[in-house]
Order: sequence, then C-alpha cells, then structure tokens
Amino acid sequence: MVVQAARASSSLEAYELLEREHYGTEVINRRYPRRSESVPKALARWMQRLLGSDGEEDFESVSLISSPVRASSAQNRRFLSFGMERRRRNNHMDESDDDMRPGANANDEVIFADPGSGGGARARLEQRSNRADEEEMQLDPLPPMFSKYGDFHTIDWQRDLARDRLRHKLINNRSKDFPLGLLKSAWDAGAGWICVLLVGIAAGATAGVIDVAARWMSDLKDGVCADRFWLDREHCCWSSNDTIYKDSDCSAWTTWPEMFNYYSKSPFSYLVELFFFVAWAVGMSTLAVLLVKVFAPYACGSGIPEIKCILSGFIIRGYLGKWTFLIKSVGLILASASGLSLGKEGPMVHLACCIGNIISYLFPKYGQNEAKKREILSASAAAGVSVAFGAPIGGVMFSLEEASYYFPQKTMWRSFFCALVAGIVLRLVNPFGSDQTSLFHVDYMVKWTFIELIPFGLLGIFGGLVGSLFTSLNIRWCRVRKGNKLVGGNPIYEVMLVTFATAVISYFNPYLHKSGTAVIKQLFDRCGPEDYMVELCEYRNVDGEVYFGSAFASVFWQLSVALIMKFVFTIFTFGIKIPCGLFVPSLVMGAISGRMLAMLTEGFLRAVQDEAGTSVFSCQIGKDCMMPGLYAMVGAAAVLGGMTRMTVSLVVIMFELTGSLEFIVPTMVAVMFAKWVGDATHKQGMYEAHIELNGYPFLDNKGEYPYSTTAYQVMRPSADRSEGGKELAVIVQDAMTLGEIEQLMRDTQYNGFPVVVSRESMYLVGYVTRRELQLALHSARQSQPYVVTASIVYFTAPGQASVMQHGGELSSSSLAPLRLRRIIDLAPMTVTDQMPMETIIDMFRKLGLRQLLVTRSGKVLGIITKKDILHFMRNASDLESITNPNFK
Amino acid sequence: MVVQAARASSSLEAYELLEREHYGTEVINRRYPRRSESVPKALARWMQRLLGSDGEEDFESVSLISSPVRASSAQNRRFLSFGMERRRRNNHMDESDDDMRPGANANDEVIFADPGSGGGARARLEQRSNRADEEEMQLDPLPPMFSKYGDFHTIDWQRDLARDRLRHKLINNRSKDFPLGLLKSAWDAGAGWICVLLVGIAAGATAGVIDVAARWMSDLKDGVCADRFWLDREHCCWSSNDTIYKDSDCSAWTTWPEMFNYYSKSPFSYLVELFFFVAWAVGMSTLAVLLVKVFAPYACGSGIPEIKCILSGFIIRGYLGKWTFLIKSVGLILASASGLSLGKEGPMVHLACCIGNIISYLFPKYGQNEAKKREILSASAAAGVSVAFGAPIGGVMFSLEEASYYFPQKTMWRSFFCALVAGIVLRLVNPFGSDQTSLFHVDYMVKWTFIELIPFGLLGIFGGLVGSLFTSLNIRWCRVRKGNKLVGGNPIYEVMLVTFATAVISYFNPYLHKSGTAVIKQLFDRCGPEDYMVELCEYRNVDGEVYFGSAFASVFWQLSVALIMKFVFTIFTFGIKIPCGLFVPSLVMGAISGRMLAMLTEGFLRAVQDEAGTSVFSCQIGKDCMMPGLYAMVGAAAVLGGMTRMTVSLVVIMFELTGSLEFIVPTMVAVMFAKWVGDATHKQGMYEAHIELNGYPFLDNKGEYPYSTTAYQVMRPSADRSEGGKELAVIVQDAMTLGEIEQLMRDTQYNGFPVVVSRESMYLVGYVTRRELQLALHSARQSQPYVVTASIVYFTAPGQASVMQHGGELSSSSLAPLRLRRIIDLAPMTVTDQMPMETIIDMFRKLGLRQLLVTRSGKVLGIITKKDILHFMRNASDLESITNPNFK
Repeated sequence: MVVQAARASSSLEAYELLEREHYGTEVINRRYPRRSESVPKALARWMQRLLGSDGEEDFESVSLISSPVRASSAQNRRFLSFGMERRRRNNHMDESDDDMRPGANANDEVIFADPGSGGGARARLEQRSNRADEEEMQLDPLPPMFSKYGDFHTIDWQRDLARDRLRHKLINNRSKDFPLGLLKSAWDAGAGWICVLLVGIAAGATAGVIDVAARWMSDLKDGVCADRFWLDREHCCWSSNDTIYKDSDCSAWTTWPEMFNYYSKSPFSYLVELFFFVAWAVGMSTLAVLLVKVFAPYACGSGIPEIKCILSGFIIRGYLGKWTFLIKSVGLILASASGLSLGKEGPMVHLACCIGNIISYLFPKYGQNEAKKREILSASAAAGVSVAFGAPIGGVMFSLEEASYYFPQKTMWRSFFCALVAGIVLRLVNPFGSDQTSLFHVDYMVKWTFIELIPFGLLGIFGGLVGSLFTSLNIRWCRVRKGNKLVGGNPIYEVMLVTFATAVISYFNPYLHKSGTAVIKQLFDRCGPEDYMVELCEYRNVDGEVYFGSAFASVFWQLSVALIMKFVFTIFTFGIKIPCGLFVPSLVMGAISGRMLAMLTEGFLRAVQDEAGTSVFSCQIGKDCMMPGLYAMVGAAAVLGGMTRMTVSLVVIMFELTGSLEFIVPTMVAVMFAKWVGDATHKQGMYEAHIELNGYPFLDNKGEYPYSTTAYQVMRPSADRSEGGKELAVIVQDAMTLGEIEQLMRDTQYNGFPVVVSRESMYLVGYVTRRELQLALHSARQSQPYVVTASIVYFTAPGQASVMQHGGELSSSSLAPLRLRRIIDLAPMTVTDQMPMETIIDMFRKLGLRQLLVTRSGKVLGIITKKDILHFMRNASDLESITNPNFK
Repeated sequence: MVVQAARASSSLEAYELLEREHYGTEVINRRYPRRSESVPKALARWMQRLLGSDGEEDFESVSLISSPVRASSAQNRRFLSFGMERRRRNNHMDESDDDMRPGANANDEVIFADPGSGGGARARLEQRSNRADEEEMQLDPLPPMFSKYGDFHTIDWQRDLARDRLRHKLINNRSKDFPLGLLKSAWDAGAGWICVLLVGIAAGATAGVIDVAARWMSDLKDGVCADRFWLDREHCCWSSNDTIYKDSDCSAWTTWPEMFNYYSKSPFSYLVELFFFVAWAVGMSTLAVLLVKVFAPYACGSGIPEIKCILSGFIIRGYLGKWTFLIKSVGLILASASGLSLGKEGPMVHLACCIGNIISYLFPKYGQNEAKKREILSASAAAGVSVAFGAPIGGVMFSLEEASYYFPQKTMWRSFFCALVAGIVLRLVNPFGSDQTSLFHVDYMVKWTFIELIPFGLLGIFGGLVGSLFTSLNIRWCRVRKGNKLVGGNPIYEVMLVTFATAVISYFNPYLHKSGTAVIKQLFDRCGPEDYMVELCEYRNVDGEVYFGSAFASVFWQLSVALIMKFVFTIFTFGIKIPCGLFVPSLVMGAISGRMLAMLTEGFLRAVQDEAGTSVFSCQIGKDCMMPGLYAMVGAAAVLGGMTRMTVSLVVIMFELTGSLEFIVPTMVAVMFAKWVGDATHKQGMYEAHIELNGYPFLDNKGEYPYSTTAYQVMRPSADRSEGGKELAVIVQDAMTLGEIEQLMRDTQYNGFPVVVSRESMYLVGYVTRRELQLALHSARQSQPYVVTASIVYFTAPGQASVMQHGGELSSSSLAPLRLRRIIDLAPMTVTDQMPMETIIDMFRKLGLRQLLVTRSGKVLGIITKKDILHFMRNASDLESITNPNFK
C-alpha cells in the first residue's frame, strides 16, 4: 500500500507537470496577465504578504497541489475513483475474467482490512492490481482516472456523473457496517443539503455586508456623520435627536463644505461639494480597479456570461476562487459607491457562485466532481438573485432559465431551499433598516384597465429597441477596446476617466446623483397626496387645470437628460475592469422611460378630458387616474428584458416585488414585446453577446436551429478530401508502437483519438483521451525501463485472439509490450453519418458530451467536437439567419 | 398528380385497415369496454343520436378518417412530410445522385407551379418520383412517412421534431413569395401563441362554468332558491332583501323540508332533510357514473397519471378527445356536487389538456405532430392548475416539475402566458362572486417565530406518513377491485354504495357536510374577535382561563371524526369510475390535522403560561398568540406533499395563495419533511403508483438510478444464449426475398428491425419500423403485380456495388426486385455494448427515444426498447432498493 501511495504521489506530480506544460500557464498568461507590471510590485508583494498567501494560486489549485494533507486525501479519492472507473469499464470483461481465472479472488480478505474513506475501493483496487501484475507486469500503475480537467476545457458530464453514481453505490454498499458505514452514508446523503444551507447563509450574510458598506461609502461622497462616522446618512439622521426627519436637512449629518465651516450656500461651497463628490468617486473606483488588477483579474465585470459558461461545463480555473470572491466583494462596494452607472446584482450572482465553489470543497462529493459541483453552483446562482432582488422564486427561475444547463429536479428543490435561506439571512441582517426583503417593494392601490395594455406594449417595444441598440453599441465599444492599444492597454486610466465624466455630469442631475436603487424606488413609488417626492409629482399637485406647466417641463427635462446620460454612461461602463452589473442601470433606464410615458399619457388624458368632459379613464382632478409607478415598473421590466432577453424569471422577479398577481399581466405584455422586438433587431442578448465576444464555447440550450445538415457534412476530417482535410487520426488497437503513438500525439493537437480494430477496416473499439494517453505513456516510460520506443502498445483485452497472435511475435522480438486497455473508454458516443445535425446538437446539449464519433456501417469516419458544433452553428446562423425560437 | 392522389387515398385506407387490424380496436376493447352492455342500449343510442355523432370515434380518428375534407388535407400533409423526410434522409445521397445525373433537374420549372399548402414539396416530390420512375419502376409509390402512431404506443420525439423543423424550413424558404408565402410564414410563426391564447381562454371559461354549476348543484342537496331557482345559496341570500346576511338563516333560501311545509325543527324534518341530502347525492353520482360508462370511459379518475404518460410521449387515443372533455365536465359537476370525498382540481388539469388537444387540431403544425402537440399540452396543464388554484406561476411549475417531459424554454414562456390568460379569464367570469383569483386567499397578521418550525416539521412528518399510508391502502384496494369480480365488475353499484355511505355519515359532521373548498377556507381563516366561525374559535372566546372546556372538546372531537372519515372515504373514492381529484381531499385532511395541532399547541401553551406566567409565546388572553390558520395551511401542504411528492410547485402554489414570502418558510419546511418521510416509507407518490398499477410505460424523469449494468446485460436478445434468448431478428440489406421478410414479420412481434450488411458481418446499415415495412410491402403487393413472394427486397442505394452485382442476377432470374431504401432510417441511435445503463436511461429520457441499437466494433448485437428499460428498472429497483434522489 505504501509503495502504491508513493507511486501515486510521483505520478500525481508528473501529472501536474504535464498539465502545466500543456495547458495551464501559457493559456492564462496569454489571456489574462496575472500580475500587472504597471503598478508597483512592492505594493503588490506587501499586500500579498499581508494577506498571508502568494496571491497567485487560485483556490482549486491550492486545494489540490499545495496542501500536503489535501494532496493525500486527493490521492485517496484518486484511488477510489480509479477503482470505480475501472469497475465500470470492465464490467463485462470482469465476468469473463473471473470465469477464466477462478483462483483470482484469493485476496478477497483484504477488502475491509483498510479503514478510511476509500478503503473498500482501495482494497479492491489492490486486489485487481495484484491480479493484473500477475498476468501482465507492464500495466501502468495508475492511469489518471481522477481526471482534472485543463483550464478552458469542457467537462464530460456523463463520465463525471457516472463516477459519482459509483461512488454513491460504494458508500451505500458499506452502509451495513453499523456505526461508521451508516454514519458515512447518512453524511453523504445529507451533504448536499448542508452544503446549500451553508451557501445560503454565507450568501445572505455577504449580501447584507455589501449592502451596508456600499450605502455608507456612497453617502461618504456627500458628507459624513459628525458624531458617529460609521453611520450612513439615513441612520445618522435617525440617531440624531431631530424631531422631524427631513431628507435634505439633518443636523447630525455634515456635508463636506460644512466640515470646512462653509455653512452658507455660496457658489464656492457648491464647488467644494462638487470637488469632494468627484474626488471620492474617482478615488474609490481607482482603488477598485487597482485591487482587481493586482489580485484578481477575474473579479471585473458582471460575471454572469462566465457563470453561464461554467455551468454549461466549461472550466475557468480561479474564476470562482477565494481571491476573486474577496476582491470582487471589496471592489463591488467601492465601485457601486463611486456612483458609476453600474449595479450590484449581477456581481452578487458571481459572488454567490464563488461561495458555492468554496464551500463545495468542504464536501469532496461536490468539490472533486465538476459535474456535481455544478449542482451546487446552480443553487448558488439562485441564491445570488434571491439576495440581489429579495426574490427567491425569481432566483430559482433565473437559475433554471438563464444560468443553468443541467438542472435535474432535485437541484431545483435544493436551489429553492438555498435561495430561501439566503433571503431569510439577508432579512435578519436587515441592511436597509426596513423589514422588507425585496429590493423595491411597491404597493399600488389603483387597478389598471385593459386599454392601458397599449402603452405597456409600447414600453415593451421601446425596451426591445433600447436593449438591441445598447448591446450592439456596447459590443462595438468592447471590440474597440480589444483592438485598440491606447484604449485597451490602460484600464486604470480608462476607469478614472469614465468615473470622472460620470461624477461631474451626475452631480447636476438629481436622478443621476442618487444611487440607482434609490432612483428606482422613487420612480416606482406612487404619487399620494402626502407624497414626499415633490419634484416627481409636483405637476399633479397644481390645483388648477394646467398640467403642462413649468413643474411638468422641468421634471420631464431632467428625466430626459438622465435617461440619455444613463444610456451613454452604461455603454462605456459595462466592460471596464471593475465589478459592474447591468441590472440596475437597465432598470433605471426603463423606470425613467416608463415614468415619462406615464406623465405624457396622463397629461394627454387630462387635456382631452378637459375638452370632452369624460374619457375612458375618468381622471378626476386631485385623484389618481393611473399609476405612474406601475408604468415605471413595467418600463424597467421591458428594458431589462430587452437587454438580457429573460422572460419567465424576469416576470416572476417583478411579481415578487409587488406580491400581487394583478400586476403580472402588464409586466408580461411588456416583457413579451421586448423579447420579440429585441430578438428581431439584435439576435443576442447582452450575455450571449459577451460570451461570443470572449469566444467561450457556450452551446446555448435555448434556441432551436432549423438546419438540415447531416453529421457527414460537419465532422472532421471533412468528408470532402479535396478541401485539404487530413486523414482521421486513429490509434490501432494492436499494431502501433509506443514511438508511433508518441509521434501521433506530437503531430496532432486533438484531445482524443478513436481506437480501431485495424486501419483498413476502421471498425470502432473505443476512444482514448489525449490526457490519459499522455499520462499513461509518461508513467510507463518513467517506471518501466523495459518499455522502449519500439514496444507495441496493446489496447486489446488479454483474452482476444489478435493478442495471442501477436504474443507469438512478442517473444520473438523480445520487446515488452505495453497494455493500456484500461484507459480506453469502451463506450464512446457514436452516431451514423446520416444523423441530422439538430439531433446531434440536441445530444450535445442534453447529454453534455465533449465529442461524438461518426460511423457508417460500423466504420469510423470522423469526429465531431463541441468546437465543431459551435463553428457550424455560427456559420450556419450567418447563412440561414437563425429564426427566433419563440416565433415557431 | 391526380393519379398520385388517388393512389395515396387507397394507400391511406389500406393503412387504416392495417392499423385497425394490428393495434387499435382489440387493445381498446380489452382494456376499456367502449360500450357497456349493462345499461340500456336504447338510452345510449338515443343520447348518441341527440348529440349528433356515433359517440364511438374519438376526436383524433374523426379528424383523420371520417371527414373527407380533412382527409384530403391530411393527404397534402402526407405529401409534404414525405417530401421532407425524403430530403432529410437522402441529403447526402442526393448530392451524389445529382453529380451522377446532371440532366436530372430538367423538371425544375414545376416547383412553384402548384399552389396550395404543400405545393413546393409536392412538386419536388413529383420531380423526384419522375426521376425515380425512370430509374426503377418498382419503387413503392408512397411509403407511410406521415406516421400515425398506434394506440398505446410511444412516439419518436426526435423524428417528429425533425419533421417539424423541415416543415418550418420549407415555409421559411417560401416566405419570399410576397403576399402568400409571407402570410403563411407569419401565421406559422404566430400559431403557437394564438393556440395557447385560445386554450387559456377556453380553460378559464370552462373552469368558471364548472365552478358556478358545481356550487349550485351542491347547494341543491340542502334546498333551493324559492324565487329564482337558478341561484345558489349565497347569491340567493344576497338577492333577497334581508338586511343582515346570516349563513344559517335566509328567508329566500328554502330547504327541502320547508318545500313541503315542515317549518318546525322536528326530528321528522331532519329526516326529510337527510333523505333529500342522500337522495340527491346518490342520484348525482349515479348519473355521473352512467354518463362516464356510456359515453367516455376515459373520463373517470383524476387523469393526472395518464397526462403524465401522454406528455412523456405515450399515445392513448381518445383520452383527450371531445367526448372525454364533454362527459368529464358534466360528470365533474355532478360528482363534486354529490358531496363525495373528491376534488375538481386534478380533473381540471385533464380538462385543460383536452382543450389543448382539441384546439391543437385547428393548427396542423401541432395537431399533426405528436411531439409538437405535447408543447401545447404542457401549456394546457399549466393553465389547468392555474384555474384550479388561481396560481399561474404554480401552474407553470407544476407543468415543469410534475407533468412535463420535454419542456424547452419557449414552452415555459408559452405555458406561463397560457396559465395567465386562463387565470384572467377565470377572474372575468368571477365564479365566486369575489374578486379573488386564488381558491383560498389568506391574509395573516401575526408573524411566526422560529420555534414554531418544530410543529411545522411535525406536520410535515405526519403528512409524509399519511401520504404513504394512503397510497399503499388505496393501491391495495385498487388491486382488489381489479382482481375481484364482485367489486370490479359493478362500477355503478360501487359508486352508489360509496356515495350512500359518504352522504349518510357526512350529514352529521359539519366538516364533512360542507364542500371541501368551503371547509379549507374555514380552516385556513384566522380567528379574529369579530369572527363568524363560532364553532372553530369558540374555545378562544371564553373569557376565563379554561381552554380545555367543553367547546374545545366538542370541536376537537368533530375534527377528529372528520379527519378519520375523510381518510377512509377518500381511499374508497379515488379510483371509482367517476371524475375525481385528489388535491382537495388531501388539503382537507391536512388542514384539519394542522388546525388540531394548532389547538393542542395553543391550549398547551396557555396552560403552561398560566402556571409560569411567561413563555416564549407570551400569549395574552383575548389576543392571538399563534395563527391556527397558518397551521392548517402548512398541514394542508404537508399532506398534499406526502401524497403527490410535489415540491417546488406545491410551495409556489401555497405562496400564491398567501402572496407573502413570509409564509413560504413554514410551508417549505413541512413539504420537505413530508417528501423525505414519504419517500422513506413508500417510494412512490400517488400518481406514480397509479401509473405502475395501470402498467403505463412511463420513464420517470426525476429519479436517479444508481445502477451499474451495461447495455450488454440488458439488451435483447439476451447476451446469455443459454437463457433461451432468440437470435436477433435482422433484415439483410440485399439478400432477402419479400416472402422471407413477410415470414419474419409474422414470426416476430417487434416494432422494428435493424438492417445489416450481411448476416455474417452484422454491420449496421439502418433501422426500419414494422409499421413502415408493413405498409410498403402491402402497397407494393397491391399496386405492383410483378412483385411476387420470391422478389428480392433491396435496401441499398442504387449506386452501391452490391446492387450492381445482384443486378446481373436480376435479369437472369427475371424477378422484379423491390427497392425500399427510402423507408429505412439511416440514422438510428446506437450505443456500444459497454455503455453503462445510467447513460442509456439518460438518453431515453432526454432524447425521447423509442429504441436503441447495441453494437460492438460496428456489429449489431441487440436492441434495447423503452419497455426493456422499464422492465430493467423495475427489477433493478427491487434488487437494489432505489435510494431517494433527494438524499444524494
């Protein structure tokens, strides 16, 4: 056992080495420079030392490489999974083996001799190894069955899930051992629930802390609480003894000019205020971008496009690590306090997923299995939306509709639990000082009439257009940033510039000056007679009949400016290197336009009524004839729908804000039109557009693709040899030497090779991945000196006729053969060459495949990988002009 | 063209004939005797004549067979789909054909010459036919590409979806023809939305009518409105001029004793009341069962198990037809009015699905494509729940979680729309006279404390136990009914007996006497000081300190009796031959037990407080210290959860009832415990148990199955030949005579056969279904006199070498060969023999397969059908004891 472990250790290191050579580092360095050379290295090193780590290793690699304790447990798991994999693969073979060799079970008593996590499996493995050693000494000791995927690679869902099922079976089998086995089984059963419980608690707490901190820092731009500097404006005024709380005047709150004893409202004091406002904003955003640049480049942006890719099975190492989490939290507070046109909600989803990833490492069942881990991440995404909007059901729907890929029933139930726990914890933290969990709680009294569906539909159309326009402009600017050295090379200056412009312009407009959520709250609110929102409802409070008076004009003018500037700011903001979300700016734009439409409509109606005396609405003077707040809400939903192309989840989130089914219909109408118009004008939503911009291999699980191509036309090598297509790179099961295989691997970059009976017949035997082959050959070279370049590599079972025949050759040529049957996957997915591409795309999406072998009459013709599918889809969509799936 | 159409018509008839011979009628007769011999035939015939149809044909067959107009349009579609299928299959082959025969496109100008729905395709088809006729006169004229599935068969999702995609593509291609093509394209695009809109409207209206009618008939048992007999009790009392409305006394409402001038409350008048109560109940239920038996045997029961099967791709002809709809609506009114322990909610889902099915026939896109039709049915199921509970989001979640199988994104969005429309229409109909859409609207004022989660958890455990006990007892009784001639042979007497017992016992208990929904409403309500529910809150209104007084005891006693009797009644009721749902009885049981627990807890707390002075709850006398209504609601959710094992959808429905996130947590805790305990004690919910009882081939898409078997061990013929496994029945592509194939089809009952290169090599070429082969051979025999028993049937392409070789033989033997390449599916799904069963089950579930071919190194070894999978799963679960998927 000890020898085995030692070997495992060395092979683990070899494996790491190989991995670093072939994937890993260059890729990362090429894509995201880990450490910037433009900021002082000393600062970075000092901060790294302060934080007690080298700041380089992401969580995953730390847990697997650095810590010796973890490494050994990882080995255990390797043993475990190896045994299981082997069992799975050789299930049929085993039986015949046992039939042939009745004495092979001699080591059976070892089975429960070894206590510990993977005991049974390990013992069984050893038993098998012994047997294997007896019959073929050249067996590579430890093929890399605990397959760590490379960075920017795609996971194999079916395989990971099979691994988990077998792990589970093993534990279940041992649950009869009374105290320990049963306990382990129970722990395994409850692990998922405990994990999401912890995620929910952590996500709720994090959101609470961020909310409180961001509020405090945001108010810091205007002033500070004189007595107790740790209070934000609202709490500061509450704590002071003012009997009447007025927003604009509160003795305890000290503005910056007042700090310097400028109490008069002179132009100079305004200038001081402006200076502090802009200086704080630029300072905060600069700090945020520095933190991101130095410690966690992945902490920038919204994170949702990447989360979508990760949940679909893509590996981005470190994207959900603890450094990203830490820096993104701090950066998010700073960024949202700086007054930039961005929201906390998208990054909150990313943060929740980071939490999910970190906590999943406490549960090897999830932490060590990428497919299972994604179940936790789906639940985390739901919790993220839940805390962002206070909408648990909306969170689950978001996770189901937008984010997740593989979403079995029990994941939904667990996501719901996770989202609910997060929501409750956030309510206990109570960051807003009110008892409401939802971000904007509304409570309308007036009902809407059916004729109002026309303006709601118009808002939807507007939302779709704005979303499309925004997406194409933003993507265009992002391309400029990527291509242009001046713009793209100086992210820090870019952030400073954008913040400066935003702060200076925002200072003068009340709807830009305030934080996004405050503006939304104000716009969503209704105009009661006792209303504090003087400026927005002033035009209503005029006792006469003139509604298009000066108050109306001034409000309308301010809102127009705010809408246009918000649109422009957000185009330049979304994509800079700080944490920034898109939800709140979209909602603000939508709410402004909705409110403006409501004002126009109401003004028009009242004008018509004045003339005619009666109208459909029968607006009485001094009373509501419609709800401008509802229009704002509908508009917000429409623009957000146009941006993200969310449907059900968006409506459910909006429903949870109001809590009344009454107002679902307007939202739904608007979202529907936004989706239709948006899809007609710009086929991708923001997230899909950014996924394409970054070139992630994301296979959308939403659209339907009306293609009519067959596998034969898409597979590689191309069926049409004249196009310069190469031969299919295959491995022959019993006729290739070690040298030939190594040559093949050097010549090609494929991730795997089909194994065939012979090059003439091309009948398929199985599939072997490059990674496993690489490691197997490497370790054979290392540990078995008699395996040389001319050794023949056999992928056949020992009992097969062809081996016997070659066995004769073997003794004559006196070269030790290398037997690698155990590393080949005997159950690769295959399709015939006439299979329509729609079905193949369906298979890739629903079964989570990495590749598919194309056969005709049993012969391998080619291979289709996920990349081929994406390539095909992109080309086909240009040619065939993808139709909107909702229209079919 | 005319000749072609005539041929098509004859082949259509032949096809129908074949179908009736082989599936259809015997199956139906065996399972559900269509017309009972025990009720007077004259009545049945009279009613049938009255209703203007023969009452036998279900909707589907009517639409396809009887109507000549429809038949011809069906032919058009056949042409269309045939052309498309052919294109799909011969995609690759075409290219090579064209290369070989450059002059073949001479007929190109025909393409748009023929106006009409399938014009382009038909022209293309004709062109192809001409070409085909040139080269091989023996081509069968019309293979049955428009494949109508047999009754109790499973659909092939991939194939149906492919058909739809090609239909869509065809329409899209023609959308450039300005007026007509564009219009058609637009119509096609909007059809889905219009269809669900109509479904929503119809479902809402139906639900409204049923609600109103059931209320009126239910009140009929007690009395009648003297002036206006068409009013129910509540409206009757409203319309009368009584200044104070009291439930028990209202001058306009006349009880039956009063009708006969017995105004005094003598024992005799009670007897008269009882007599009328029981007589009406038995009368109504007898009428219901007669209607069901005579006209629509499928109208009985809840329908949800069958809906689940249908949505998973099973065909039950006539289950969603217009007769079922009509009779189920009427029967449901009668049954729910009769006071039996049943609910309207499950059948409402069935009714909505009937509506969906009927309306989908207006849209050939959905009506003619079983896979696409299921998208409409999913939306309909959502609408059904939406109108049953007034919970649109809950409806969508129900459709997603419980009912549906194939649920793409756009179906969700459309389901949501459908559910919402149905809800709005129901609110416009306003059957309850209140403005509430939800069935039980609650509005609690007091908040719950965390310590109350303990009783909520207890309620959950109780719910799980009740659900399991109920399921196993009910299933046992259903088995008795199936096996025992006396019980099972007399459904009418059974219904009468059950109704009689229920009515007599219910009459004496206030909680059984009232309708289920009224009881739930009462139990959910809170005990305010102004409360009208005297009996339930009486124990609270006592001014002293005695809470366990007589009022308490009497209420408690009544509730206990109601609970036990409800349980017993429901066991015997669920499964009798009238429309009956399970939701409301479950909710009643749960609400009663929750309320009882609340009373006990409160009594206990007050008793403790009296002694100690203070407690956690600090119940003040005269004030609420807890909400008994909330307990009732939580209990209701728990029992329903235990019965059906619903999770997210149940919580969402409950959330929509209250409209407050506050009360999600208690519901969730209870549902969670109910699910866990239920799964631990009886692994199936009611619906799954009934599916198994009826032997439907339902592949659950929820569980995860920790098996470790490979395809090799499951496929047929069994790998182990010693078990008496037969040889695999295959068709050789170019070496079998017509007689041999017909012999093979007579000898076997398989639904399809793999086509192989030769019997020695067994290399797979394709797959041909029995149905298509049957029709092709039949029509060849009919129309081509020179095709005789000794003719060789070729499945090869004309250009292939083997044909050439046989072509030499052909001229020498002077027998005309039959070429059937066009009917074989060149893209069957295959797996290797080492594929683990989990993956195979996954493929069946996610891709909707009918069968899967098992290969090794390109050779066909066997076949796995859905039935094999079900068989395997059932056996495996007995052996391995399926673990609860939630615990993993």
